Amino acid sequence: MDLNTITITSFTVRDLRWPTSLDAIGTDPMNLAGENSFGYLQYKTNVPGLIGTGWSFANGQGNDVLCTAIRSLAPRLLNRPLASLTANMGLTQRKLQSGQIRFMSPERGVLQLATCAVLNAIWDLWAKAEKKPLWRLVADFSPEELVRAIDFRYLSDVLTPEQAVEMLRETGKSKAERLQLALENKAVPAYNTSAGWLGHSDDKVRELLGQAVQQGFRHFKLKAGLGLEVDRKRLGLVREAVGDEGVLMVDVNQIWDVDEAIEYMKQLADLKIWFIEEPTSPDDILGHARIRAALKPYGIGVATGEHVNNRVMFKQLLQAHALDAVQLDACRLASINEILAVLLLSAKFGVPVVPHSGGAGMVELCSHISTIDFVAVSGKKSILEYTDHLHEAFEAPAAITPDGMHVTPVAPGYSCDVKESVFGEFECPQGSFWRSAKGLEMLNDPWRGTLGEQTS
Amino acid sequence: MDLNTITITSFTVRDLRWPTSLDAIGTDPMNLAGENSFGYLQYKTNVPGLIGTGWSFANGQGNDVLCTAIRSLAPRLLNRPLASLTANMGLTQRKLQSGQIRFMSPERGVLQLATCAVLNAIWDLWAKAEKKPLWRLVADFSPEELVRAIDFRYLSDVLTPEQAVEMLRETGKSKAERLQLALENKAVPAYNTSAGWLGHSDDKVRELLGQAVQQGFRHFKLKAGLGLEVDRKRLGLVREAVGDEGVLMVDVNQIWDVDEAIEYMKQLADLKIWFIEEPTSPDDILGHARIRAALKPYGIGVATGEHVNNRVMFKQLLQAHALDAVQLDACRLASINEILAVLLLSAKFGVPVVPHSGGAGMVELCSHISTIDFVAVSGKKSILEYTDHLHEAFEAPAAITPDGMHVTPVAPGYSCDVKESVFGEFECPQGSFWRSAKGLEMLNDPWRGTLGEQTS
Repeated sequence: MDLNTITITSFTVRDLRWPTSLDAIGTDPMNLAGENSFGYLQYKTNVPGLIGTGWSFANGQGNDVLCTAIRSLAPRLLNRPLASLTANMGLTQRKLQSGQIRFMSPERGVLQLATCAVLNAIWDLWAKAEKKPLWRLVADFSPEELVRAIDFRYLSDVLTPEQAVEMLRETGKSKAERLQLALENKAVPAYNTSAGWLGHSDDKVRELLGQAVQQGFRHFKLKAGLGLEVDRKRLGLVREAVGDEGVLMVDVNQIWDVDEAIEYMKQLADLKIWFIEEPTSPDDILGHARIRAALKPYGIGVATGEHVNNRVMFKQLLQAHALDAVQLDACRLASINEILAVLLLSAKFGVPVVPHSGGAGMVELCSHISTIDFVAVSGKKSILEYTDHLHEAFEAPAAITPDGMHVTPVAPGYSCDVKESVFGEFECPQGSFWRSAKGLEMLNDPWRGTLGEQTS
Repeated sequence: MDLNTITITSFTVRDLRWPTSLDAIGTDPMNLAGENSFGYLQYKTNVPGLIGTGWSFANGQGNDVLCTAIRSLAPRLLNRPLASLTANMGLTQRKLQSGQIRFMSPERGVLQLATCAVLNAIWDLWAKAEKKPLWRLVADFSPEELVRAIDFRYLSDVLTPEQAVEMLRETGKSKAERLQLALENKAVPAYNTSAGWLGHSDDKVRELLGQAVQQGFRHFKLKAGLGLEVDRKRLGLVREAVGDEGVLMVDVNQIWDVDEAIEYMKQLADLKIWFIEEPTSPDDILGHARIRAALKPYGIGVATGEHVNNRVMFKQLLQAHALDAVQLDACRLASINEILAVLLLSAKFGVPVVPHSGGAGMVELCSHISTIDFVAVSGKKSILEYTDHLHEAFEAPAAITPDGMHVTPVAPGYSCDVKESVFGEFECPQGSFWRSAKGLEMLNDPWRGTLGEQTS
């Protein structure tokens, strides 16, 4: 379809929240009760049936803040030919991040999430117009086209557009083979997290682990940080289920100070843990670097990224040699634009990308991202988290093969579309769940998710 | 007043915007047109006439996002005795930053601004209840009381509560003398920025400079980054007006990449510039460190901070020896709580604090902060930006003495209160200005402040 003939004519923003806290899904030491939530944007066009969908992720309370931010940015892209936006997506990103609104929060926080939702909708629209899944649209780019999707501002001390083109030319030589593997669902191995949420009983964890091993999983990540004894017991359950060849990772969601992280993890060295995820503040680049250096002699690596907001922070985490895995998040960065920048930076430093996808819709988006990384950027196989809840809500749900590989997306677009039937129940506040007594009780509690903290 | 008898009973949040872009106030290379704006919170109490006011700062578009965020957090502190909040402000801060809402944006961006507004209102209420200006309330704290106001999470690798108490005991020995100086308006020397905004003609700059020299100013900061020739001309106007003993600073508001900053500034070395402010992304700790190291042989320092969102980022800027001045912002951090943490960190590293106060109400808040630093924390005199617009809007306006010193605040509270008469004109969208043809035109332009960027 000629992108010059497509114009965005209007948009809607909806506040969608699943009451996931009721099932203890997504609980961790920092987030004791969360409702997987979307600020959900749809751009309508002059072409009947052609809609661009983009969303960004929140955790319940505050999703209205995200929706307000999306409503503020979304009008900027109305009434212009789609081609004028896609011709230079790096510039489109920079424009969206400029202006009065930039001052509040330059490339961070809620506004970064909102920018991501807007750009996700444009990428989705573009891919649908080209009748390709998003990963394929990007994989088919020339090196120059891919680089034009990136805003290189603040990166040139580490990576210039010219160097990026050079890197892409090199990996491009074997792209055809990897493309074939992607088409055969052999691009992205899955790992499992669903078994590890806090809030599940030991029996439940054992049951979920057994299922996961049956499904072919060999990588397992557990929430930890509940005290050495409790952690040892839970990690022991996993070793029992997966044997010595299984790969263990642990995640503490930012609860420690730097020295605390080092001291605690040293005492788990015998359990052979690949990495400790989010040991401390996601902003603490130098802290992560120090933890990594201190734990290296114990064979334990460091990972972070799900709360890292922009390419400048990832640039430094890589410069400081702070990471063994780059856990970029599909919504925390400014959409595919900035994700491509981080994929290139990671490839340059030789650090594998292991996207964060622990939430509704995250696997749907990340299966595109990991496929792009494998086929078109690093050219190396990495793993991708597979969480198994709420896929049924999506028009193009993520799935895994019987041998534990992610199914490569085939539907045109970025797999963002949520089934319309979901909104009747879970749109907030008008959906039937949120009008129920339980829903109202949850909405009216400003302390939800801070269990045990509301009393002083 | 017994803080146990005071209870917050209700709150209001108002969106206040001054159309400052019409006078080119606050323009810079990154922010081409801004409207100084507040998300304005007032907590009413059971005590007639006792109201806690707190606000956070935005730049026009997006102030509704800030207000939505404040409305989400503010209910958490209703219906509890004020004493239960003030007894441990560090814990109160941590609670406000926890829960579902934390996930979107941990200690950054719009939610950090909203947290600041809520805590500013509590500090204002506390100081009013004690019938003291805020700076005095804090200056009268014992070391233990001051330390209890801080959340030390993520700081202990550099500063522990025990070390902080030790530092405060040491500076406390000479506190009485400095308190006396504060009471005599001899605590905080002012420096001038109003002459340096982009958008003013040369004649206007010359006129403003002449006035400033008359007022006793010797420190001048100019916006720069418009090209070497233009910058040299404008900086030359200042040298002409203030002579060799004047202190020059320049600010480019994040427009450069790391190497670009180094190359550009080297070429201004002969103009004897104290520091280059915000040379690159405010998130680029390692970049600032590299710029500082490269410019040191040229006698040029580096400063940043107005966009630095939390103590963890400042901790690292100091650890990396990236700064010659800590330009913390009164609203960008989580209120006095986190500001005290950054004052202590700066004192520990021996780097002067030069708060950012370029916007409506900023001088009002920062004169408290700089006074606290001088009297109670570092014990050292530093300078504070004085911008001379919009003071008339405040109940307790900031002012300077004829010899260029900030007047130490005397009114009880944190000087946050805006005169009620201002809201009739500038509350958005219902104030008379925002209902006028010009106001509506400005509000309806989603690209405002991105001059020249909206066309692709």
